Amino acid sequence: MARSVLTPQAQDFPRWYQDVVAKAELADNGPVRGTMVVRPYGYSIWERMQADMDARIKAAGARNAYFPLFIPQSYLTREAEHVEGFSPELAVVTHAGGKQLEEPVVVRPTSETVIGEYLAKWTQSYRDLPLLLNQWANVVRWELRPRVFLRTSEFLWQEGHTAHATEQDARAYAARIHEQVYAPFMREMLAMPVVLGRKTARERFAGAVNTLALESMMRDGKALQMGTSHELGQNFARAFDITYLSEQGRQELCWTTSWGTSTRMLGGLIMAHGDDAGLRVPPRLAPVQALVTVVKDGEGVPAAARQVLDDLAAAGVRAELDDRTDTPFGRRAVDAELKGFPVRVEVGPRDLAEGSVTVVRRIAGGKAPVALGAVVDTVVAALDEDHRALYDEALAHRDGRTHDVGTLDEAREAAATGWARMPWADLGPEGEARLAESGVTVRCLTMPDGTVPPADDTPGALAVVGRAY
Amino acid sequence: MARSVLTPQAQDFPRWYQDVVAKAELADNGPVRGTMVVRPYGYSIWERMQADMDARIKAAGARNAYFPLFIPQSYLTREAEHVEGFSPELAVVTHAGGKQLEEPVVVRPTSETVIGEYLAKWTQSYRDLPLLLNQWANVVRWELRPRVFLRTSEFLWQEGHTAHATEQDARAYAARIHEQVYAPFMREMLAMPVVLGRKTARERFAGAVNTLALESMMRDGKALQMGTSHELGQNFARAFDITYLSEQGRQELCWTTSWGTSTRMLGGLIMAHGDDAGLRVPPRLAPVQALVTVVKDGEGVPAAARQVLDDLAAAGVRAELDDRTDTPFGRRAVDAELKGFPVRVEVGPRDLAEGSVTVVRRIAGGKAPVALGAVVDTVVAALDEDHRALYDEALAHRDGRTHDVGTLDEAREAAATGWARMPWADLGPEGEARLAESGVTVRCLTMPDGTVPPADDTPGALAVVGRAY
Ligand SMILES: [Zn+2]
Ligand SMILES: [Zn+2]
Repeated sequence: MARSVLTPQAQDFPRWYQDVVAKAELADNGPVRGTMVVRPYGYSIWERMQADMDARIKAAGARNAYFPLFIPQSYLTREAEHVEGFSPELAVVTHAGGKQLEEPVVVRPTSETVIGEYLAKWTQSYRDLPLLLNQWANVVRWELRPRVFLRTSEFLWQEGHTAHATEQDARAYAARIHEQVYAPFMREMLAMPVVLGRKTARERFAGAVNTLALESMMRDGKALQMGTSHELGQNFARAFDITYLSEQGRQELCWTTSWGTSTRMLGGLIMAHGDDAGLRVPPRLAPVQALVTVVKDGEGVPAAARQVLDDLAAAGVRAELDDRTDTPFGRRAVDAELKGFPVRVEVGPRDLAEGSVTVVRRIAGGKAPVALGAVVDTVVAALDEDHRALYDEALAHRDGRTHDVGTLDEAREAAATGWARMPWADLGPEGEARLAESGVTVRCLTMPDGTVPPADDTPGALAVVGRAY
Repeated sequence: MARSVLTPQAQDFPRWYQDVVAKAELADNGPVRGTMVVRPYGYSIWERMQADMDARIKAAGARNAYFPLFIPQSYLTREAEHVEGFSPELAVVTHAGGKQLEEPVVVRPTSETVIGEYLAKWTQSYRDLPLLLNQWANVVRWELRPRVFLRTSEFLWQEGHTAHATEQDARAYAARIHEQVYAPFMREMLAMPVVLGRKTARERFAGAVNTLALESMMRDGKALQMGTSHELGQNFARAFDITYLSEQGRQELCWTTSWGTSTRMLGGLIMAHGDDAGLRVPPRLAPVQALVTVVKDGEGVPAAARQVLDDLAAAGVRAELDDRTDTPFGRRAVDAELKGFPVRVEVGPRDLAEGSVTVVRRIAGGKAPVALGAVVDTVVAALDEDHRALYDEALAHRDGRTHDVGTLDEAREAAATGWARMPWADLGPEGEARLAESGVTVRCLTMPDGTVPPADDTPGALAVVGRAY
């Protein structure tokens, strides 16, 4: 019944995306071009992403801190590639406190520079290393073609920044975040399959010597980069004088990393799992796993609904009550489909007279009467099943739209509907540049077994090629 | 032993404060004047404040959302008092994306204006009311005389914004946040006594018709405003056209509120509970309630320490291990005192030979041997006691330094060491203006029984007068 509410995906995918964002009440455009308002429902999903990701980051040994929004412009210019990469996107404060500032101040686009300044203060000796920091913050990168969650002038993210005594240790930690924090989070919480790989030189973060990325396929076949983890070599250590006294009493330069994931993941979630009826939220992530709906008032109905709610909550299910019987039932059902709650439990007088309720499945589809005594078990089993089902569906979709190719033309053709996979030794930087002319990019280099190639020229490395958000 | 590390409070309180902030590794100054870096230990305390406050706010029915950092300059000017109050503190972005902006953009000093714009969109009918929102965000108010946590050009806070159908409902909600969210949080989590009152017209928030505040006394006798809750009347509703269709089918203006608490509370915590050895963190708030310290290595010592750690964790105590035996024990003890962990459990070979460890109390003071089998019970009991002890100590300090006075001279004298209490009917706006000339302000109006006077001219209302941060 929700068909009429949203533009169908097949008809106009970007329009469908905008419709879902608006109608599921996820976000709105901000008054300043390119900014966004994350509405309560959208924010409740982000909060659950944050909480789970935060626990994983802490388990990897990093500690949270908070660094200033405002960065002296001179900091940005200390690392040549970094400033070149970010200059066009900077927002600059020139007046404050009623006066023109002597030195303009940049609104952070990312915090390698300002955090580098403090890493330098705090890493005195080898005993201080590794120094593992993370922050949850807003960042600003001016966008000319904004799109809510995907490209906004301000977004929310976590950014990790670490300093290490050796190149090996920095490399291992960047890989740990990539493989043991980000990838399992995306698979286990977001039910999204991700390809793990390294970026080509062309696609690397400004100032990094290596960028590890996680790429996911959206339902229109395009790629979305879900997170990155960078080895920064000694570039920032040199620019910010991040040194330490080694066990042997020598002053040495540190090796640093940085890594981030953002509200962009919300965009990825929508486009990876959503369908023509709206969003479908993976059960482990869902702020509301089961919506208990009072179909219409009637003897014992509100009490029965509340009992189901309490029983679900007691079983650890995140359940919410919808007893807005002054709103037509059909409208509430459409709204629940749009918001993508995995399960609905409809409690109405007719079912109740027979001792049952109706369980509606958003992800598996279908509805069925369930005896009151079996509701909790049914819902718990459904949630368990739905995570796997969403993941498998997304994986099958991706695999079905990924083609092994041998020529640039074939790669372009495959990129029209999905991804191409081609040996990097055959494609190379020149082929990459040619593809870029038609908006097709190398998303990452990966090995046939799904592992990350240790270098760009690792024999057997495959380029995953596609169009991207 | 920590005496030598910090400037004593009695000698120079502001210097003591700076010393604690630096040596307990709570925060650092940012590179841009007035900004701050919240270091991992400081941030871990803030995170615990956030988590507990967030749960209380949600229990009061508000939902989190996120609104943009950048606000069109024109928004600020729509409410006359508001813009007048904030203009001198604004930071303004004039350039972004490599160009001069057509309309300069203000970095949010608070979000009444931008949120007002969206409240107007979302409150269509009386069914949408009350609309209760909160956000956790950074805000910027340029400070000429910054002081870490207390006055910084950027700080972190939560700001609630709500719209209501009636004045009574808005008033009740502002009071609910003040009395049932903020006050219990401060008493139960921060172990800080607070005076609840209303601000005089002179001290009100720019644009509010009534500002409720919570005032706490620091150990130097000065006041710190720990939080505020504002009734905004229809000022912002009028400026942003926040209207709704009533049940009777009439278009009506909403009544709005806003309320906030910030990282400033960290400053209050330090100055309310700290002593010459450093910070003392109330046990319910403390990220580390018990530090298990390996005094020095020895047969079975590390294993015993880990067993104590596990036992404490199993009993729900937030415990952490300090096994850095390559750092002198004395230095680690001073550091633990500075950071204010409520309890230390010292595990060393000598005690262990007798089947015991040493429990050191930061708040109650003293150290005593405790049999291994009794450690958990001892620590749990200590934490329980310490909360009460810190609260009572702060309350006794406040009451001891609060004097009922009858004249302006007496008020000034009392404010040299603490607070004065004087009937507002006797003081009045003129007396208030006279006191302000010597830096003494009316912190709030309160009733003798601790309740909040419903109006400025409520008979019997007392002015609490003092110097303030
Ligand atoms: Zn100017
Ligand atoms: Zn310019």
